Amino acid sequence: MAKFERHVFVCTNFREPGSARPSCSTDGKSELHTALKNAVRAAGLGSSIRVNKAGCLDQCEHGPTVVVYPEAVWYDGVTVADVPEIVSEHLIAGRPVERLTIADECLNAAVCPHRPALVTRS
Amino acid sequence: MAKFERHVFVCTNFREPGSARPSCSTDGKSELHTALKNAVRAAGLGSSIRVNKAGCLDQCEHGPTVVVYPEAVWYDGVTVADVPEIVSEHLIAGRPVERLTIADECLNAAVCPHRPALVTRS
Repeated sequence: MAKFERHVFVCTNFREPGSARPSCSTDGKSELHTALKNAVRAAGLGSSIRVNKAGCLDQCEHGPTVVVYPEAVWYDGVTVADVPEIVSEHLIAGRPVERLTIADECLNAAVCPHRPALVTRS
Repeated sequence: MAKFERHVFVCTNFREPGSARPSCSTDGKSELHTALKNAVRAAGLGSSIRVNKAGCLDQCEHGPTVVVYPEAVWYDGVTVADVPEIVSEHLIAGRPVERLTIADECLNAAVCPHRPALVTRS
């Protein structure tokens, strides 16, 4: 095969407690990444869809964050419980999960309802 | 702003010496990631182009590996010396650097001139 049909990046960034911005992972490992990877494999999509760990995706106030390329669909507040829906709806059926999608006014916004003005961005 | 204009993922995966597959990074940190990030910032593109660390991108025999989305352009054997050309040609001018592009017959191939048949894939 050639390029991945979809490439899923899961933020696994960890910051020490008390940092200016929150972390997407509590340990730098990410059970979310493991759950997504296992679910994609179980669905028989392991060779066409890659689930990757990523460093900070810069949407920290919305984490845990996941982005799916090439369509550039961004998800926030993703938990292990959301994995079956992301896999069946988005990765298999091609319908992004709207309830998890980061709002346009929030994505990369300097200030939004979830990101106070004084946060220092990485 | 909304979505990143381009999102660059740099494999920073490190394996112990003697592992079945090679590593893209010698230390898990990646001076390549740092150099790309700094060059993008220096070009004034820091808010529209994100340079991210990534875990194993599964092109280990071609590493160090970089992938640029949403266009899904894959580069192999990337060094710090290649950073200025990637930034000026691809990220600014929109012309992928052909000499660094992973050949179609190599990308995700089970076997290719760079990937022997007996390699165990992650």
